[in-house]
Amino acid sequence: MCTAIHYCPNSAFFGRTLDLHYHYKECFCVIPRNFDYNFEKKPSKCHAVMGTAFIKDNFPLLYDAMNEKGLAMAGLNFVGNAVYDTVKERIFQIPVFKFIPWVLSQAASVAEAEELINKTNITNEVFSQELPNAQLHFIIADKERAITVEPTARGIVITENPVGVLTNNPTFDFHINNLCRYANLSNTQGENAFEKAYGLKVYSNGQAALGLPGDYSSPSRFVRTAFLKANSTPAQKNKGINELFHILNSVQVPRGAVKRDDNKYVTTVYTCGYDLDKKLYYYKTYEHQNIKEHRMDCGDLNGKVPFCFPFA
Amino acid sequence: MCTAIHYCPNSAFFGRTLDLHYHYKECFCVIPRNFDYNFEKKPSKCHAVMGTAFIKDNFPLLYDAMNEKGLAMAGLNFVGNAVYDTVKERIFQIPVFKFIPWVLSQAASVAEAEELINKTNITNEVFSQELPNAQLHFIIADKERAITVEPTARGIVITENPVGVLTNNPTFDFHINNLCRYANLSNTQGENAFEKAYGLKVYSNGQAALGLPGDYSSPSRFVRTAFLKANSTPAQKNKGINELFHILNSVQVPRGAVKRDDNKYVTTVYTCGYDLDKKLYYYKTYEHQNIKEHRMDCGDLNGKVPFCFPFA
Amino acid sequence: MCTAIHYCPNSAFFGRTLDLHYHYKECFCVIPRNFDYNFEKKPSKCHAVMGTAFIKDNFPLLYDAMNEKGLAMAGLNFVGNAVYDTVKERIFQIPVFKFIPWVLSQAASVAEAEELINKTNITNEVFSQELPNAQLHFIIADKERAITVEPTARGIVITENPVGVLTNNPTFDFHINNLCRYANLSNTQGENAFEKAYGLKVYSNGQAALGLPGDYSSPSRFVRTAFLKANSTPAQKNKGINELFHILNSVQVPRGAVKRDDNKYVTTVYTCGYDLDKKLYYYKTYEHQNIKEHRMDCGDLNGKVPFCFPFA
Amino acid sequence: MCTAIHYCPNSAFFGRTLDLHYHYKECFCVIPRNFDYNFEKKPSKCHAVMGTAFIKDNFPLLYDAMNEKGLAMAGLNFVGNAVYDTVKERIFQIPVFKFIPWVLSQAASVAEAEELINKTNITNEVFSQELPNAQLHFIIADKERAITVEPTARGIVITENPVGVLTNNPTFDFHINNLCRYANLSNTQGENAFEKAYGLKVYSNGQAALGLPGDYSSPSRFVRTAFLKANSTPAQKNKGINELFHILNSVQVPRGAVKRDDNKYVTTVYTCGYDLDKKLYYYKTYEHQNIKEHRMDCGDLNGKVPFCFPFA
Repeated sequence: MCTAIHYCPNSAFFGRTLDLHYHYKECFCVIPRNFDYNFEKKPSKCHAVMGTAFIKDNFPLLYDAMNEKGLAMAGLNFVGNAVYDTVKERIFQIPVFKFIPWVLSQAASVAEAEELINKTNITNEVFSQELPNAQLHFIIADKERAITVEPTARGIVITENPVGVLTNNPTFDFHINNLCRYANLSNTQGENAFEKAYGLKVYSNGQAALGLPGDYSSPSRFVRTAFLKANSTPAQKNKGINELFHILNSVQVPRGAVKRDDNKYVTTVYTCGYDLDKKLYYYKTYEHQNIKEHRMDCGDLNGKVPFCFPFA
Repeated sequence: MCTAIHYCPNSAFFGRTLDLHYHYKECFCVIPRNFDYNFEKKPSKCHAVMGTAFIKDNFPLLYDAMNEKGLAMAGLNFVGNAVYDTVKERIFQIPVFKFIPWVLSQAASVAEAEELINKTNITNEVFSQELPNAQLHFIIADKERAITVEPTARGIVITENPVGVLTNNPTFDFHINNLCRYANLSNTQGENAFEKAYGLKVYSNGQAALGLPGDYSSPSRFVRTAFLKANSTPAQKNKGINELFHILNSVQVPRGAVKRDDNKYVTTVYTCGYDLDKKLYYYKTYEHQNIKEHRMDCGDLNGKVPFCFPFA
Repeated sequence: MCTAIHYCPNSAFFGRTLDLHYHYKECFCVIPRNFDYNFEKKPSKCHAVMGTAFIKDNFPLLYDAMNEKGLAMAGLNFVGNAVYDTVKERIFQIPVFKFIPWVLSQAASVAEAEELINKTNITNEVFSQELPNAQLHFIIADKERAITVEPTARGIVITENPVGVLTNNPTFDFHINNLCRYANLSNTQGENAFEKAYGLKVYSNGQAALGLPGDYSSPSRFVRTAFLKANSTPAQKNKGINELFHILNSVQVPRGAVKRDDNKYVTTVYTCGYDLDKKLYYYKTYEHQNIKEHRMDCGDLNGKVPFCFPFA
Repeated sequence: MCTAIHYCPNSAFFGRTLDLHYHYKECFCVIPRNFDYNFEKKPSKCHAVMGTAFIKDNFPLLYDAMNEKGLAMAGLNFVGNAVYDTVKERIFQIPVFKFIPWVLSQAASVAEAEELINKTNITNEVFSQELPNAQLHFIIADKERAITVEPTARGIVITENPVGVLTNNPTFDFHINNLCRYANLSNTQGENAFEKAYGLKVYSNGQAALGLPGDYSSPSRFVRTAFLKANSTPAQKNKGINELFHILNSVQVPRGAVKRDDNKYVTTVYTCGYDLDKKLYYYKTYEHQNIKEHRMDCGDLNGKVPFCFPFA
């Protein structure tokens, strides 16, 4: 369970929650331009990348990231629907655990990312035996637009994502159709059908959104995030990242709200946000709700070695 | 579980469903003016009454009825909230199983019914040991207005019923407040919040009522009936009774939809409708869905003996 | 707007509602074996067919039907998604207005229907200039199973329909995924999460299905019908057709509940049911709610001329 | 709009959100034992109190607070239902703007608070002409239990609050009855009604709470908070205040989600939490989401002058 959002009230932001019943030692990580990802075909040049990673054997396994060009990307659980290795004939063979850095190190925009992905086969090669690949789909966004990338049995499906939101199962087309069911929810009082008929008055603000789902299933988090984004109106120009965290607060999972069949609880391990213009990274964790800020240029972007800041 | 409706699209109608996991041998019954109800204080004169009854030892135990003046009344389950014998000091002591004929034989309008009830104590005296009293509350309607009458621990509470709907628990004030939560549901397409924000189109009629509850709990049947009544628009002037049955079809309970803790199924035993102007009675049962019609004046209204027509 | 159901409590039934804001002169119609449908390639032999039709220039335009082998089929609105003429290379070229009799006159089972459809191109040829083709998808059922047939831009998509329900937009895969959201709705009381936590008691039967949508949009009618079918438990073996009408009553549209942008009201023009074993047809209309019965063998099934019974 | 919660996972906490379309200059404030509230009948002794206040002319107008005995209290909007001055015959005449310090300075427990309130008339005397009284109801909690106090036309109604949650309109009894409608929502996967019937699998965690309302109306925030509290399971013993903020995050109002008729937006001005055992105060504001902590004993509790810390 995870929720990602591309949010552009005035300048562009990107963010996500990671909802799991376990987690590794996540950190904030900047990967400089000359880091060697050990791609099969070594690219001539890489963009610097920053994001959330679990560092294993000196390799940053990225959950979400953005590059120095303002292109951002996140992987979200897609269990049961994700199928890899479906377009083996393509030029580039990229294991899914390298797919985020592959795209972000090479592409400067969503358009470039699309072109690149159309030449790429996502393989199921694993990082190590103890770390099987996650089943994922992806959202990729620049300052203008967002796309969804879904490796399925039908191949790698790239879809324009006009809503700029991604959660989990089922496939993205479902969520768009499902969102339409909630099209009449409103943030204003709207018409009271029972006033004329029965003389009844409304006694609370916020009633016109009755029907907005409050549970933590994937379709419901999608609808909630899309509703809040559609109605979001930051008070001031420079408050976008603050609003992004408020929106994501509404889909964060308190401990106890979701209990798995194995009796473990899913919680929002961390929430992070990216300022695509200013190249800033913000995050908070379940245990430490205060938001911390990091700059991309907090080290030498031309180096070879990632620099990491463990989550508080 | 039951739903009652006072419905006045052009002329006035009244109807109800009876939802139970068992039932007696119901019949349509006309009680002429000179029938002796054996009230403690014998009234000087009684209005003729017709309605749905279970006849036991020649006494019509009425579930719902109307009188020759166009006043209608129904009793609906109110288990856990109904308390009798709370105003023992009043003039008239009426067992709950005689409360419907008491009101309908004496009152010609809702106003007269209110006045009478304010002088009446509803007692818990039983018809017989095998027939304990049902725990009930009541809706009473004439051609103009409706009231709810609830015997509770706080006494006999009479409330104006501007919605003209009654179901079951909890008390009536809850249902009015609850209905307000659904005030924004609409029968028209309305505004699409996601078209402007995301370019999404709506793909089905009827979406603006998303949030209308479809289950069979008492609050949900209340909301559904009130929504349909508020939007009802009969095609022709003389089709009111047809529309009333269509509205009640929407809250009828198919067998299997509601299973009690004792593994019995609640179904809509019968649905009936009254034409308050023309003094007609219509009904159908769960097993025989065709609607039958009866006239009030199908016998001598000045007689002493009820005439009954068993349900098909 | 329409709802179709394949319902097999003990023996097999099929039924549908037709929800529209206008209608033609529908009738019950039996088409004998030697009627000439004027197919491009004349079949050697045809099964007799009965169903709901609008007769135009002596040709039965079928809305839903079954054949003498117990195979049933209905067309339902699929506006914006239906695309015809996508597989022009196939053997049989069948205009969409002849697609129902084409399948039912030739196939004796769902398996045979599938095989036939895989050789068929549904063309957009019209019956006449005044009668443009409806945009439709189809449900086909025999006594064992049901399939959905959707002519879309991706070709003619045939899908197993384990739910045995079809409504309208969007495509069928959406409805299956959407139904899963409601998987926890129950007809039994179930566990009360607030009793242990807060000591609260439940006060109404039927509460465990809270969340069941009560509106008339296509996804909501699908969920409601599937929920009622899954929990349906007829009292007696021979009551299946009675239950089918009770289930469909729950999705019938009272006049006023759905208002189109052109200010017209959508209502349930008719509801019909088929007994696949006994070859019986039942129907009621919006204006005449009493259910009428017709037999398939009410005329010479070897004749050439359809025999029709106008709807009451 | 506001939400208050009494939360006792192991030790006892109390917290609230304040949702408004405007706000004054709130601060954290400690009122020592010898501050003079200028009550009509001067009490012999006062408990020290800390809480959220707007300081006007050196008088702390409290929104929520707790005292040194671990008794906490909050006032929440109750517009249209709050009526003051209904029990003028009582011993103590306390203006509503002094009602919180009156109770907290005198009572050491909920039981003592009840006793005191039963001797108190809440008057409508205003602090000043520019500051008309808010229309409020109250929640009062100690380490064991909580009550709701509602000044209504029926007098000052004190109700046991087993849920330990308060929001706004309508009256508290409504919210308890309404909560029961959602009794079947679960944090576990639960039974899948459609697996047996149709072979469908569930594709997302968290689905069993479908029906949990996600909007910002008063009844919906009540249900959401009560559901999350009932299922809350902090990971560690000393994490209660962290969980309390997670629960309240779920009902905080992002800017834009609720637009009033005057086109102003309601947002969560601040969220605060009290540790009733350790006498700690935590808060965050809409603009500054980082949680700050204050101790009650950060000054001389025997002084006469409140000490205040303006909100960041």
